[in-house]
Amino acid sequence: MKKFTLFTPGPAEVPPRVLKALSEPIIHHRSQDFRSIFFDVREKLKRLFKTKQDVIVFASSGTGSMEAAVVNFFSKGDKVIVVNGGKFGERWTEICTTYGLEVEEIKVEWGYGVDPEDVRKALKRNGKVKGVFIQGCETSTGVEHPVKEVAKVVREERGDDTLFVVDGITAVGVFDIDMDGWGVDILLTGSQKALMLPPGLSMISASERALRFMEKSDLPKYYFDLKREMKAQKEGETAFTPAISLIKGLRESLTMILDEEGLENVFERHKRLAGILRSMVEGMGLKIYAKRPAPGLTTIEIEDAENLRKRMRELGAWVAGGQGKLKGKIIRIAHMGYYTEGDMIYVGNVLKYVYDEFISKQKKN
Amino acid sequence: MKKFTLFTPGPAEVPPRVLKALSEPIIHHRSQDFRSIFFDVREKLKRLFKTKQDVIVFASSGTGSMEAAVVNFFSKGDKVIVVNGGKFGERWTEICTTYGLEVEEIKVEWGYGVDPEDVRKALKRNGKVKGVFIQGCETSTGVEHPVKEVAKVVREERGDDTLFVVDGITAVGVFDIDMDGWGVDILLTGSQKALMLPPGLSMISASERALRFMEKSDLPKYYFDLKREMKAQKEGETAFTPAISLIKGLRESLTMILDEEGLENVFERHKRLAGILRSMVEGMGLKIYAKRPAPGLTTIEIEDAENLRKRMRELGAWVAGGQGKLKGKIIRIAHMGYYTEGDMIYVGNVLKYVYDEFISKQKKN
Repeated sequence: MKKFTLFTPGPAEVPPRVLKALSEPIIHHRSQDFRSIFFDVREKLKRLFKTKQDVIVFASSGTGSMEAAVVNFFSKGDKVIVVNGGKFGERWTEICTTYGLEVEEIKVEWGYGVDPEDVRKALKRNGKVKGVFIQGCETSTGVEHPVKEVAKVVREERGDDTLFVVDGITAVGVFDIDMDGWGVDILLTGSQKALMLPPGLSMISASERALRFMEKSDLPKYYFDLKREMKAQKEGETAFTPAISLIKGLRESLTMILDEEGLENVFERHKRLAGILRSMVEGMGLKIYAKRPAPGLTTIEIEDAENLRKRMRELGAWVAGGQGKLKGKIIRIAHMGYYTEGDMIYVGNVLKYVYDEFISKQKKN
Repeated sequence: MKKFTLFTPGPAEVPPRVLKALSEPIIHHRSQDFRSIFFDVREKLKRLFKTKQDVIVFASSGTGSMEAAVVNFFSKGDKVIVVNGGKFGERWTEICTTYGLEVEEIKVEWGYGVDPEDVRKALKRNGKVKGVFIQGCETSTGVEHPVKEVAKVVREERGDDTLFVVDGITAVGVFDIDMDGWGVDILLTGSQKALMLPPGLSMISASERALRFMEKSDLPKYYFDLKREMKAQKEGETAFTPAISLIKGLRESLTMILDEEGLENVFERHKRLAGILRSMVEGMGLKIYAKRPAPGLTTIEIEDAENLRKRMRELGAWVAGGQGKLKGKIIRIAHMGYYTEGDMIYVGNVLKYVYDEFISKQKKN
């Protein structure tokens, strides 16, 4: 018998009622039925992103919207700063470099958040920086970067001359990112984390300031051409065929988040879940890997991580391992989206059970 | 009460068992469970495409794979020929132009298939053409282009120096496109037509010849970087998070097509359905718009098309209208994928009922 609960930072568990929405008969996307669903989704996404700007939906995984954040707003040779504190910071550098931007990386030791003053120094050193790229949460290390503080630094140092771009793939809907309030210029996320959907959708929004940059961008784009999509999506349509079933599921999950539980309550729940799990982990004498842990996942330093993880999976709790140089050294337990306190008690005690086995084996040897 | 059957050329009807697969609990994509599903899907896609080459799956609509067909194989300034006989031919030109290719269009009158000898002439005129782009079926007009014959011309004129690129979005799984046998270099399709799935997946395959071109391509790409995807997908993974639920649905629909009905039987059924519907249409004194009609959809010249279409929808049969300059002048009835003879009798007679109403109203006035 196979029975798993996913505690992985994407995909995360999908509520049965969302799964049900995915299995409804397909409707046509050029129809009043779809338009009214899509208008509702678009209004809800604005509340989720805390913005008055349009939020655009792509049929792609989150990386698609990361690419859109580069190709629509910048030009070949533009100088940009990337905060790189893990695998997804690296991805910003890869995408920017692919499209001919000149990247200066602020290398952040894995497990740490960036120091906003390091961003200030880099901006002072380089008078012509057009963009600063960061993760809200660096999913590979479980770290929350200080987005609000970095936004403030970018604005203080550069006014309207530099865009602040936030990959919110494990942040939007997980903890507070106040796009308009903090002056985030580009914010994006994906469907398979806090939004409690299967992968296959990404969403992106751009500030007025970013829209002015868009007019000057010379990078080639077609599928991820945001201007074309904005024009279409204002009319309740999409430039290319949308992922209809996932958008129907998105309306269901956004209803749960925004209208039933309430966004601030969701944020509080994520913090509470993180607290419960982390106190169990620390009670076992284990160390949290992230120095500035994000509310959406808990990264744990542990010996023999890959075997422990496999053993947890045998017992039904599917957690993630480390990526890149962290493979075998940490496990990652996600708790963003469809998770309860009881889920934390479950996954924490499965970890304890497996870790106790490991310790007693070690003692025997 | 709302009750519709979709006869639109994307999305098309999705079988209940495929809908059911979409609503199964989500599984993790870095797992043996997913890998074994994905290996199965990859093997089946090779049979569908009639190729020994890898078929790569993207989380995107079909247009994403059209973009991949351009950015992975060509270089800035490359001269290419686009067969443009409708809205999707235009899309090839748009994508190629966006990425700096030099496009010569063979403009085909809407409703007609390209004459392979026109391709030959264009190739003789331009000694340095790197690619010839075409649709297997031009969905906006309902025309099947003579893919096999054009493939032959490209090979005769240009040997290994030119790639033949086929948008098979309403062709693959609808009628025979023998990728390896005919010498098609790049073939692509989307999920929401013959594959009987919601939109959100596209698939693309490249010949050995095309893979040699890939090594020299200098266009920027990241999300649609085929080389990265090929490397990942050979291992049963994907470079970025795949659309897991749609891939599970894809296995179900490919099983239905390849293992239960049989691909050649599916092709025969599509021809049979087209025949039934077209004889009904002609029996009503109406004209088929396409001079070289494709088996996947029937385009019908009709007065007051938009109102007739709306009326058909009120009665439950959802057909498509014309696009661009054909708006109001034709209706398009799709019959690729999950459709039976009975469905044709249904949609044909709804059309007849509505058309009779229209005629009797006209007589009154």
